[in-house]
Amino acid sequence: MDSAVIPLRHGGLSLVQTTDFFYPLVEDPYMMGRIACANVLSDLYAMGITECDNMLMLLSVSQKMNEKDRERVMPLMIRGFRDAAEEGGTSVTGGQTVINPWIIVGGVASVVCQPNEFIMPDGAVPGDVLVLTKPLGTRVAVNAYLWIDQPEKWNKIKLVVTKEEVIEAYQEAMFSMATLNRTAAGLMHKYQAHAATDVTGFGLLGHANNLARQQQNEVAFVIHNLPIIAKMAAISKACGNLFNLLQGTSAETSGGLLVCLPREQAAKFCSEMKNLSSGAGGQGAVGGAWIIGIVEKGDRHARIIDKPRIIEVPPRGSQAANQENSSTSPDPSPNVS
Amino acid sequence: MDSAVIPLRHGGLSLVQTTDFFYPLVEDPYMMGRIACANVLSDLYAMGITECDNMLMLLSVSQKMNEKDRERVMPLMIRGFRDAAEEGGTSVTGGQTVINPWIIVGGVASVVCQPNEFIMPDGAVPGDVLVLTKPLGTRVAVNAYLWIDQPEKWNKIKLVVTKEEVIEAYQEAMFSMATLNRTAAGLMHKYQAHAATDVTGFGLLGHANNLARQQQNEVAFVIHNLPIIAKMAAISKACGNLFNLLQGTSAETSGGLLVCLPREQAAKFCSEMKNLSSGAGGQGAVGGAWIIGIVEKGDRHARIIDKPRIIEVPPRGSQAANQENSSTSPDPSPNVS
Repeated sequence: MDSAVIPLRHGGLSLVQTTDFFYPLVEDPYMMGRIACANVLSDLYAMGITECDNMLMLLSVSQKMNEKDRERVMPLMIRGFRDAAEEGGTSVTGGQTVINPWIIVGGVASVVCQPNEFIMPDGAVPGDVLVLTKPLGTRVAVNAYLWIDQPEKWNKIKLVVTKEEVIEAYQEAMFSMATLNRTAAGLMHKYQAHAATDVTGFGLLGHANNLARQQQNEVAFVIHNLPIIAKMAAISKACGNLFNLLQGTSAETSGGLLVCLPREQAAKFCSEMKNLSSGAGGQGAVGGAWIIGIVEKGDRHARIIDKPRIIEVPPRGSQAANQENSSTSPDPSPNVS
Repeated sequence: MDSAVIPLRHGGLSLVQTTDFFYPLVEDPYMMGRIACANVLSDLYAMGITECDNMLMLLSVSQKMNEKDRERVMPLMIRGFRDAAEEGGTSVTGGQTVINPWIIVGGVASVVCQPNEFIMPDGAVPGDVLVLTKPLGTRVAVNAYLWIDQPEKWNKIKLVVTKEEVIEAYQEAMFSMATLNRTAAGLMHKYQAHAATDVTGFGLLGHANNLARQQQNEVAFVIHNLPIIAKMAAISKACGNLFNLLQGTSAETSGGLLVCLPREQAAKFCSEMKNLSSGAGGQGAVGGAWIIGIVEKGDRHARIIDKPRIIEVPPRGSQAANQENSSTSPDPSPNVS
């Protein structure tokens, strides 16, 4: 499971808790702080938990930074982390900071819940529909962005993508990683989700497999569609299937929720995500939603069909996104109906 | 405060939570795991909390270790951490591991408490007595041990200490750091402690000052006695007051509790610590107890008197320790009566 669930000594309550920390992967320290916090909270959201009682911050300051850089960078990172925590309805009350060769940022999220506040991720049934709430491809986007300054690497992909497209994709990835999965967590209750997980280091297929393995029923997850940040599939192919993005095992950071929903609820879930994302907070505060597959009878494994449909997700704010808002339209393709 | 205390949405309960992580400081990986766990739990114990509902482990594996060393070292460290958690009545249910230039080990301890389970560290009154439950000098001992192989450093201290004494002191420090402050935490309730903190990175005086600052009453902490691992005071002096051990600001790792007790209870607290430490688990499982000072009226600061009495604490198992068990005798010297 994404979080530890510990029964408490008091009145049927459970402590749900998770921790995560990693190294910076975007240049902007403020956004990096937000991403780290979103990534920690995501493990709670994957269980349908929308509240967080406490957040601790884990930080290491790099010994290789000079004092001026430290003073410029670290307060911004802390600020980003705190702001995202606040958006998650919680606050940072403690933590630990050390000196280390590399910068580390992460946290610990804890919440004490009644049983009805969380959804155990083991109730998928054949006929359910799989929904993903953020596009894939963050790792490819972050790496391609670094390659702009590395001619040897850039030459491999310059025929399929422009620098502007890479920069747009990088920014899309950054905003997507910084988006809290909180709205999706709330809708999991409203639309009676049967199980969910968040997509991070093992990639979509890795986490889908983990989720399939813990189901009570004998089910299999079959993935037909891969929503991917625009152009990242092309980059991956141009590099001989870089990071195995199309095989579903490219690592994501602070990825979306993979949610098993009753068939009759999935379209409503997606449509409400769409409406919310076109409202006040915008997609940046909500995420998107794509129907990506179905739950069949099976041996508790997940697989991606041969030649899955690639859904190119345009960067938010781009013309394509504005015209179509395709990123949040549920897809009623024959694959999943 | 040593831990974050977060009021919960449920029935008067509070979430008490703390995190700590650092780098290895003893050679033995198993003992290092125990020390890291004892150090995390200590923040709960400082609030008189004897239970822990959940522990997460934070770990980084060094990229500079070869695979064989990793496989030898990391499982032992994890085992030590888990064993100490079990001794604390809890278990490790999750965590995060990353790769890093340096090894990091630490954790997050969480407990959901009723109000009577913890003692807010702000109730000291003039006339209280200050008790310390582990000897000082862990940092000096750990460093002196490294100097055995560094002739330049060793020459500075060889006139005041033998190699055998340094090895004994190092081992004493290691066992002391690995000792849980849990027994002391339990006795804080029995003997109505008014406030406590644990002694770690800021040294005895640093933490005493922090504790004094948060008192409701206008009090000052006056420290008369310094219980120190045998010979460490001599080493510190020989090196021109190394780490400011005698000024009370030498960092400790997983140090003892500094407890403010009502005057009439302090001797009983010490005597029960002594009895428990001579029983089954031994001093290794309990710690010791020394009366080190008093609480006066004052401006919420702590100070050490001019020429404090140094209490030489012999290594456990040594002849001196067996003869006298002086390490756990409360000291009814005129200083504190």
